[in-house]
Amino acid sequence: MRNFTFSNTTKIIFGRGAEEKVGREAAQYGRKVLLHYGGGHIVRSGLKARVEAALREAGLEIVELGGAQPNPRLSLVREGIELARREKVDLILAVGGGSVIDSAKAIGIGVPYAGDVWDFFAGKAQAEEMLPLGVILTIPAAGSESSNSSVITNEDGWLKRGYTGEVMRPAFALLNPELTYSLPPYQTACGVADMMAHIMERYFTNEPDVLFSDHLCEAALRGIIQYAPIAVREPENYAARSNIMWAGTIAHNDLLGMGRIGDWASHNIEHELSALYDIAHGAGLAIVFPAWMKYVYKHNPERFVQFAVRVFQVEQDFFNPERTILEGIRRLEEFFRSIGLPVRLKDADLPADRLEEMAAKATADGPLGSFVPLGKDDVLAIYKLCNS
Amino acid sequence: MRNFTFSNTTKIIFGRGAEEKVGREAAQYGRKVLLHYGGGHIVRSGLKARVEAALREAGLEIVELGGAQPNPRLSLVREGIELARREKVDLILAVGGGSVIDSAKAIGIGVPYAGDVWDFFAGKAQAEEMLPLGVILTIPAAGSESSNSSVITNEDGWLKRGYTGEVMRPAFALLNPELTYSLPPYQTACGVADMMAHIMERYFTNEPDVLFSDHLCEAALRGIIQYAPIAVREPENYAARSNIMWAGTIAHNDLLGMGRIGDWASHNIEHELSALYDIAHGAGLAIVFPAWMKYVYKHNPERFVQFAVRVFQVEQDFFNPERTILEGIRRLEEFFRSIGLPVRLKDADLPADRLEEMAAKATADGPLGSFVPLGKDDVLAIYKLCNS
Repeated sequence: MRNFTFSNTTKIIFGRGAEEKVGREAAQYGRKVLLHYGGGHIVRSGLKARVEAALREAGLEIVELGGAQPNPRLSLVREGIELARREKVDLILAVGGGSVIDSAKAIGIGVPYAGDVWDFFAGKAQAEEMLPLGVILTIPAAGSESSNSSVITNEDGWLKRGYTGEVMRPAFALLNPELTYSLPPYQTACGVADMMAHIMERYFTNEPDVLFSDHLCEAALRGIIQYAPIAVREPENYAARSNIMWAGTIAHNDLLGMGRIGDWASHNIEHELSALYDIAHGAGLAIVFPAWMKYVYKHNPERFVQFAVRVFQVEQDFFNPERTILEGIRRLEEFFRSIGLPVRLKDADLPADRLEEMAAKATADGPLGSFVPLGKDDVLAIYKLCNS
Repeated sequence: MRNFTFSNTTKIIFGRGAEEKVGREAAQYGRKVLLHYGGGHIVRSGLKARVEAALREAGLEIVELGGAQPNPRLSLVREGIELARREKVDLILAVGGGSVIDSAKAIGIGVPYAGDVWDFFAGKAQAEEMLPLGVILTIPAAGSESSNSSVITNEDGWLKRGYTGEVMRPAFALLNPELTYSLPPYQTACGVADMMAHIMERYFTNEPDVLFSDHLCEAALRGIIQYAPIAVREPENYAARSNIMWAGTIAHNDLLGMGRIGDWASHNIEHELSALYDIAHGAGLAIVFPAWMKYVYKHNPERFVQFAVRVFQVEQDFFNPERTILEGIRRLEEFFRSIGLPVRLKDADLPADRLEEMAAKATADGPLGSFVPLGKDDVLAIYKLCNS
């Protein structure tokens, strides 16, 4: 096990009515709040009006910035930074899913920074502070509600890049599973794939002697696999929605990855897909992750056998590890399919004519991943497996 | 799943050499530190001298209070409160195991409180603040390094009582698994029983629809069961020591219990044993927990079947749940025995002549537990099972 530091200070308030506490929580951080959100869903559902009323009741003044999109855009982040500076807001409240929260994080680190906010995502600067950030989560998926990272898409070249820094953890996050009842099955499934990927990125490590957190990762995956089909089938099933929502936070609050080095190649390989085609990140991951597995499993067959046996209860063939491994990957694909996700490019109606270009872009800053470092040819081979 | 708030702000620095960072971490909280510890072990090992040098190098002034005992005593807590007030210390540094940390927590909430510190443990007052507390952990067991609770023994009547409050989380905790190499096998095993009990107290709940955290609890138990025999057999095995040390923190940092209501009757039933006979808390738990299980399993056989199958891989007898359940409890006892722990009073050379008295004391403030609320007669029956 590697040395590590774990410090996750986000206060999570979870359960029915959690969002009603937004006034009390937000008021601890100032008087003027930038309310950041995406599209019209939270307007139509009445959530926005309820949140505004709660904020006003707690004496807060509201500045509004809507329009955050999936794969959130740098241009809106820059607009938000200008707005927050001009209005001298004290804190940001993100109402939405991972895209809104990531966008809010980027605004939050951009406001106190003298340079251009893209510097952080381009690896040219480290953020030293962030405006206090509160979250009302409506989509369990990205785990951004307590994670230390943000992913932003720069329209100039459609570069999708992540930045990680401890200052980016939200101060508080309000998680009401009932707010996710209106998520359509496809979006629910995409969220499930995203959280599973967050766990699997940490699970596939070269670090020896991490069996305790191996067990935790496998358990989290099994819990998600148990509840996800129910959440997809019965959108108003509180048991499924609440367990899936909490799973999304646990999957990415760093606890499961302590003492290990994660891989994260699949995330980066997927980023090129969603940057180019605007496919949902989770759907892209359902396509990329099994392909990545098929390409790298020979590097550490034991770990893939363990995955197959412990996560998917594959009956182990002790004489033929490869058979066990491939059955594990097949069951992962089968699970993704069963909840309505694509597992090949063609399932998502994506063309396969720009694989070279994506592989070049994905590896422009060097090889991807740590489990097996992947150069351009490796990534291209994985994209081809996405098209097999 | 129940509504909950999760907020664990303790910064954990984990790994080889972690304690060397004590100066930098402590200096963030002031200039004068109360160094609290137990017996001579940290003196003989040289740890105390190294810690003092690091603190002085960081410009801190040290006030010393040794002598914390297992089942830490109220009298020393009161002495520490007087000392900390007189010397106007800014923070406390606890170097040791759960007893030292619990003692330090009690001192820390006592210093700013106008009344008597026992008020908190007697349920007469709520702590509103605690002096900042740092920890260098030498015994993985109690999880007190990031928990929100403390257990203190009042010599006046040998009352052992716990107090829980969010202000009691340490500010930072330094965990170096190498510092646990010198723990004797018996003490290592007692720590293992303690952390397993922390998980099982949360696991046995009446709350429905918590299968995600069920999986996490079972995983944590399996990880501990896998590494504990190695740590007992090979004291300098870093893999085992590091996984067990991290498990002890996870077992009690509250994450595994979110959305559930824990039971905690076994802890209270054990407290009477260790208050009266000064047996190690973990050894007492190894005796009490299986007895508690035998007494209550009929209340929710399904949960005990799940425990047996998932934690101890008992081959399920679908036609005879009781057989499966009893085999699970038998394997838990067998596991405790295998790492050198007692599972009956006589194994620990404890007499059985004051069971009535203990049952009366344990239930003096009302029934124990929430899974099955236990009155005096129930607790007496459990003590008798400890003597079966």
